[in-house]
Amino acid sequence: MARIFNFSAGPALLPGEVLARAGDEMLDWRGSGMCVMEMSHRGKEFISIAAEAEKDLRELLAVPANYKVLFLQGGATQQFAQVPMNLLDGKGKADYVLTGEWSRRAVKEAQAFCDVHIAASAEDKGFTYFPSQENFKIRNDSAYLHYCSNETIGGVEAHWIPEAGDVPLVADASSHILSRSLDVSRFGLIYAGAQKNIGPAGLVIVIVREDLLGRAAKGTPTVMDYKLQAQADSMLNTPATYSIYIAGLVFKWLKALGGLQEIEKRNVAKAMLLYDFLDASSFFRNAVEKRDRSRMNVPFILKNSSLDEIFLKGAERQGMFQLKGHRSVGGMRASIYNAMPLEGVQRLVDYMREFEKRHA
Amino acid sequence: MARIFNFSAGPALLPGEVLARAGDEMLDWRGSGMCVMEMSHRGKEFISIAAEAEKDLRELLAVPANYKVLFLQGGATQQFAQVPMNLLDGKGKADYVLTGEWSRRAVKEAQAFCDVHIAASAEDKGFTYFPSQENFKIRNDSAYLHYCSNETIGGVEAHWIPEAGDVPLVADASSHILSRSLDVSRFGLIYAGAQKNIGPAGLVIVIVREDLLGRAAKGTPTVMDYKLQAQADSMLNTPATYSIYIAGLVFKWLKALGGLQEIEKRNVAKAMLLYDFLDASSFFRNAVEKRDRSRMNVPFILKNSSLDEIFLKGAERQGMFQLKGHRSVGGMRASIYNAMPLEGVQRLVDYMREFEKRHA
Repeated sequence: MARIFNFSAGPALLPGEVLARAGDEMLDWRGSGMCVMEMSHRGKEFISIAAEAEKDLRELLAVPANYKVLFLQGGATQQFAQVPMNLLDGKGKADYVLTGEWSRRAVKEAQAFCDVHIAASAEDKGFTYFPSQENFKIRNDSAYLHYCSNETIGGVEAHWIPEAGDVPLVADASSHILSRSLDVSRFGLIYAGAQKNIGPAGLVIVIVREDLLGRAAKGTPTVMDYKLQAQADSMLNTPATYSIYIAGLVFKWLKALGGLQEIEKRNVAKAMLLYDFLDASSFFRNAVEKRDRSRMNVPFILKNSSLDEIFLKGAERQGMFQLKGHRSVGGMRASIYNAMPLEGVQRLVDYMREFEKRHA
Repeated sequence: MARIFNFSAGPALLPGEVLARAGDEMLDWRGSGMCVMEMSHRGKEFISIAAEAEKDLRELLAVPANYKVLFLQGGATQQFAQVPMNLLDGKGKADYVLTGEWSRRAVKEAQAFCDVHIAASAEDKGFTYFPSQENFKIRNDSAYLHYCSNETIGGVEAHWIPEAGDVPLVADASSHILSRSLDVSRFGLIYAGAQKNIGPAGLVIVIVREDLLGRAAKGTPTVMDYKLQAQADSMLNTPATYSIYIAGLVFKWLKALGGLQEIEKRNVAKAMLLYDFLDASSFFRNAVEKRDRSRMNVPFILKNSSLDEIFLKGAERQGMFQLKGHRSVGGMRASIYNAMPLEGVQRLVDYMREFEKRHA
């Protein structure tokens, strides 16, 4: 079968060039006689792969020198626990912004470790917007303020960075990292599961300001202590070597096409195409406030939900897959990450236009 | 370059057939139009891959029905913490067998969670043997007895299973799992990092008896709770999907060549070839007690350590890599896991014989 347009929310589409390269190098990475999976993580070949991946990521995001970049395991969900384990610093309290399913899970996990205060919430309107700064109530003595900068399920994105004063700002940027420029210096810590814009599931990237290292609570597993991992260049234990290699290829791909400025332009164009269609349609609808809509995850519903299955089947016949919405909310969702070409979104919009004509 | 003989202790050699298959399927897994890395973990394609991998692993190891098989992240090192977090059950004490570097790390990590008693130790002879059952002093009220069934660095393997009475037996079997038949029913829990005989680094397999589930201490991160992961078929969070796929291909490869009985025969033959040579040599030496020697990891030293570099360079010229011993012990180490063919060990022995003639 030809390569499909895969609208999965994650694990998600990867650039075809990256996969082709990985396929070519599967049995012999650049004359080494080894697959990257077979390389000792302490060997010169893999050390060079990991160093290059970190260098390219730092360059793409313009990560300041006083931040460490860690390549860890366990995904964002493990970070829900790892963040309080590492950052509470004996304070026993942390503030969270509640904007949907993923921030809710982060809150729930944190509650096992500390007193959680909801500094702002969008629950009143069914998580269809991102709260405004003037509605934030942040405790000054909180260990950190956590928010999810792009809610993958609800399709809500923070297009600005909250101000938290002296309280370190922590973001779960899993589903929009590398989709746009980002001022890393505004954050205490940013984490992101790889399986959207970075690479294979199982890898999680943590970017942490150095002054926040060394605060891990007693009983924090060694591999989960940011400081120890930073000191060991993320190799306190054997890292997810092959995933780091694929991530590195994705970073090279991004750099070659012009970096975050260029990918952001493309992502804006893709998102506008789809949202403009949705707003003009009287059959399809996206419920999120315009200014807070995600460029990465676009949930939408059909006027008549009994047509959902017909819509999905028809899309599959045209090579478009994984458009079903998350089981917790239903409807549809098109995840249009970096690797989704404009052509894929155009095909989706063309199909939706046809579908509307036939069924409206 | 041609594929090399890679004697790395892990990440390690993978079967060429497995890598060739993965390369073929990189851009299109069996007509799906997707790479496995791109598949939603909730989609029917990946669900079938994960279910097949579990089925094959259960078949290979004859895992009894009252055991759960989990595919988790963080490697064996994360299990060093995860085991006490899940199994202490309020008892506050656990027993450990100390047989080398890896069990020492497990002990150190456990000490942050409970009172650790060393039930048996091989420290008196520099970790060159596995203690006999009659020297085990196990506390009856201990939450579990932990041992490392193959010490990757020291090259010491337990060729029998300790008896722990009513105390659940826990094994770190990372570096010899699937290299031999194993009576799983003797264990409470077995864990194994994938990067030796299973697949890519970042995946860890946990086989746990059902009655031990549900004992996680308060404050255990959700993704680290065995019971919650068991209930979610290891998909509480997005699992390391591609690593599970590669592991599944390795399981198929093992089944096709005759399962664990056949691979054990081959592993015995490979190990005998190397140890017989070492014992006959007056230039090379392995220090481990004969009955406790590892079939997987064979450390050895040269009579004259100033020749180490010359030995390694010469081996590389003949296509044999990663023979340098672990930095903590020096000397040489040949890791001859399942994927290492007899031909590779034969070439090593031939080379060593020549080297001895030239330098003795």
